[in-house]
This record gives sequence, C-alpha cells and structure tokens, in this order.
Amino acid sequence: MAQPASGPKTVQAGRSSAGRTARRRITKITLSPAQTAERADLLAAEEPLGIRIGGHAVSMTMRTPGDDIELTAGFLVSEGIVTAAGDIISIVLCTGERCGHADHEDDAREGIGNVADVMLRPGLDSLAAKRNFLTTSACGVCGKTSIAELRVSSSHDLYRDRVSVGAAVLAALPDKLRDAQRVFARTGGLHAAGLFSADGTLLAVREDVGRHNAVDKVVGWALLAGRLPLSGCVLLVSGRASFELAQKAVLAGIPVLAAVSAPSSLAVDLADDAGLTLVGFLRGGSMNVYAGSQRIS
Amino acid sequence: MAQPASGPKTVQAGRSSAGRTARRRITKITLSPAQTAERADLLAAEEPLGIRIGGHAVSMTMRTPGDDIELTAGFLVSEGIVTAAGDIISIVLCTGERCGHADHEDDAREGIGNVADVMLRPGLDSLAAKRNFLTTSACGVCGKTSIAELRVSSSHDLYRDRVSVGAAVLAALPDKLRDAQRVFARTGGLHAAGLFSADGTLLAVREDVGRHNAVDKVVGWALLAGRLPLSGCVLLVSGRASFELAQKAVLAGIPVLAAVSAPSSLAVDLADDAGLTLVGFLRGGSMNVYAGSQRIS
Repeated sequence: MAQPASGPKTVQAGRSSAGRTARRRITKITLSPAQTAERADLLAAEEPLGIRIGGHAVSMTMRTPGDDIELTAGFLVSEGIVTAAGDIISIVLCTGERCGHADHEDDAREGIGNVADVMLRPGLDSLAAKRNFLTTSACGVCGKTSIAELRVSSSHDLYRDRVSVGAAVLAALPDKLRDAQRVFARTGGLHAAGLFSADGTLLAVREDVGRHNAVDKVVGWALLAGRLPLSGCVLLVSGRASFELAQKAVLAGIPVLAAVSAPSSLAVDLADDAGLTLVGFLRGGSMNVYAGSQRIS
Repeated sequence: MAQPASGPKTVQAGRSSAGRTARRRITKITLSPAQTAERADLLAAEEPLGIRIGGHAVSMTMRTPGDDIELTAGFLVSEGIVTAAGDIISIVLCTGERCGHADHEDDAREGIGNVADVMLRPGLDSLAAKRNFLTTSACGVCGKTSIAELRVSSSHDLYRDRVSVGAAVLAALPDKLRDAQRVFARTGGLHAAGLFSADGTLLAVREDVGRHNAVDKVVGWALLAGRLPLSGCVLLVSGRASFELAQKAVLAGIPVLAAVSAPSSLAVDLADDAGLTLVGFLRGGSMNVYAGSQRIS
C-alpha cells in the first residue's frame, strides 16, 4: 500500500484470516433437462470487522476481507472524523491468531480477531467519541424527518466544484466498472464502487458484499493516497443509491455520484441540498439525472 | 392490520409523514438519438425509523415508510427479543407532528418524528437492554471469526423441520415475487422479500429500500398474525443472501431461504450450522443449493 510521508503508519499483524473468496460444495439443480450435480462453487467471503478508536469499539461491519485498512480509513471519513491522512497516526489491523499491537495484549489472549485499531492525532479522539455517542443514541437524532439532522456535516463545499462530465463519458463507465470487477466475475456476489476522473479514467475500484463498504474502501484509498477531497471525480456504484451512499460521496468531496440502478428519495433530497450531481439508471446508453444536471454536458 | 386477541395493541398516531413513493423532477438523457427531456419520476421513499423499547432508543434504520409496525415487530424477532405476539404489549407508531403516546410528550414537543415505541411484557425489557448493549459494544463480540459468537441464539430447531419443497415449485417463485412487487414496478428501487408455503402459495410480500427491512416486515407480519415459527415455509429475497438475512430466517423458524442472486460465505456457514436450507441463483429454471439439499425434491 502506498504510504505518503505525511500519512498514517499502517500495519497488518498476524496471518490473514481469510481471502476474498471461499470455496464450498454445492448441489446444482436444473429443471430442463432435469439434472442434479455436485460441484465446487466460489463464494464472496463475508466476515465481521470491528473498528476501534483509541481502544474503544466504535463500529462493526460485515465485509469482504481485503483492503481492510482502506475500509477503516474510509469509514473514518464517512463518519466525519478525519479529512486528511495526517489525522490518522496509525491503523493496526489484527486478522491473525495474535494481535501484533503491544497495547492490546488482552485482545490477543481473547483469541482470533478481525479488528482494526485506530490511533488519531490528539484532539480527534474526543470528536470520535462524540460521533460514537451519536451513533448509539441514533434514535434521538434520527427519529426526525429533517435531513439536516441526519447529515454528517462536511467540510467540502460541492457547489464550488464546477467540473463538467460528458454524458457519453458517463454512459461508458458501467462497462469499465464491470471489466475491473475481478471477484464479482468469479462469484457474482459483490457490489462494486469505482472512482473515475471527469474524462472517464478509472482511478480505483473496490468490491465488497456491502455496497457501503465498497464505497468506504475507495474513499479510504483516496485518503491514504493524499487525494481528498476528490474534486472533479465521479463515483459509480453497481447497485442503487441510498441516502448513506450519497452522504459518503459528499463527505469525500465527490461532485458526481452515478448508480446503475435507482436512487432513493432521501438520496435525491440530500444531493439537492449539498450540491451533489446524482445520476441513476445509468445503463444502455441512457441515464436519469436527479440533481445537479448542470455538470452533465 | 389483523390484531389477534392475544397480540399487541398497535397504534398509529398522527398523520403519515410520507408515502412509499416520492415524485421528483428529473432530466432524462439518451445518447442515440441524442435527447434531453425534463419529466417527473417516481422514486422509492427512504426515511429513518427510530425504534424505542420502554422509552430507550435501541435502533435506527433507513426504511421505506409503510408496514412500520410489522417492521418493528420483525426487528424484535430478528434481535432475539420476542418469539410470540404476546411478548409485545404495544407498538405505538409516531409518524406525525404530535406523538399520540401520553408517556412521550417531550418527543411531541421535539417536532416531527418517525419513531416506533415498543412496550414489552414484564421481564423482556432487561433482555432488550442486554441486546442493545451487545449491539453498541459490537466490536467486542464481533471481532471474532467464530460464527457462534456472531449468532443470536434461536429457540427454533430447524433440524426438526422435515418439509420437502419441489425444485419446480422453487423455480416458479421469482416470477410470483416479481408479480407481487407493486412499488418496484413503478420505481425499480426496492428489494422484496416473499414468504411462501411449501406448495408455492404466496403468503406475504413486503418491499423496502433495505433488504433486511423487507425481511423484517415479513417476519413481523407473521409474528402479529400468530404464525411464528414459520415451519414449512420458504422465504425468497430478491437480491443476495448475506449472513444477516440467513440469521433472520433462522430466528423466524423458516427452514428454506432462497435468493435470486449469490449468497455470501458466512450465510452458507450459518445455514450449515443451523440446519437452514440455502438456495442461491434461483433464476431461469436452475438453482444452486448451498446447504440443506435434503429438503429439495
């Protein structure tokens, strides 16, 4: 992994607990002709990853192993906790039988774990603790219809991003994303998120059983590469566009979010509010632009 | 809604804050022939729902409004908190400007909310509080690779369910589900979960922007109708089968989970462990059986 001089120290301790795919025996049944056959099948791997900040558990996500440090970094961006690689002192990933982090000998004794341990620069810990509090008392926050109360405030003003993206460039992105999806091609079981420049050049693609994780992995890659905010970029997701995905795009400073399938009402409302261009049903040479159509040329 | 004599009192207070769909203006762009047109588009609605038990916030989910009492009831089953309608004294849904629940005047003063207030029978509150604790300290639980530690224990023994389902019956279910998906047909933006009897009769179908919510709505419908455990039934989901969905099936006592797309590795491992039949890629007259193939005839 590229580690810029100003960026965090990232360590992967212990053996890798699993790959991105897993092999299982299945029974394949077809009706006409009526056939039953036993064979091996390749599945997308799914495992839990716990995220700790300063030793405190803040999140757990079911994810496809791989790119876990990027996933953790992207989670920190999406939660509004960090905005640059320099905000993170270290991310230590413990996926083995023993955790290599000296501060966490207790965890090592607890057994095998899938845990990412984050140390933030002084001052950010308290912000992280506050975010965690907001998450765990979510009903108090989210039992409201106001988008303003749901939103994690972003330091990026998307309205200032005057990038223009050609409709023909956008229309070509789904094929590029599919070509780059290596694990999906073998398992059919993964969502993808692809980051593109405005001229359609693929910058990064990540896959996961959870589409929010695929986006966090791409955003984490950008953070660690010193590329945030992602001004002038297009994020393409393989499925639908929910409020959560739109919020991740806004927090990473991405001006254009495109989805192969439908957006939700709240994703459109957030895009309208934040100055995000939101494209849906991007397939077969056509698209629906739900917000920010001034960026599509 | 059907309210069995032994079941909970369910109340919907205030005006409904939103429908299942929302209309927005979009720009439709096609490349050949090159055309741009403004028109109205129908979207799947997405809004937060907070769930409280005994006045304490325990969860927040982004869901499509509608069937919210069923969604709440199903959430309680999926979390292992309740197993029968009699476990719930009341579910009061506040989606209006003023909450109708006398105990929560403060909330009414806070403004418009989307909150489901649950009262459980004596003794279950402490269990709910414990589950909430487990959720918020999830990394301590879930930073493990052992499925046993991830699983919510179920009171249903699926190994005892000797139902047999014909492969031809299964193959016909996706079309039945699609025909019953009313909102999807108009928005293209919703996941569906359908509950069927072993002979392929549709018992219930629910839609949501989140597939876990669609399943919770179906399970909640069954709980409120006094139908749990769902012995001998088949649950079909429109997308992929994750660990979370397999766990929901197990907790509702459903012996067969089928998915139109791929399962994850952990969903297969859980199915193997719990005695759940797991079918994936159920489409075009064929299917892959990942676990429990003895139930497919």
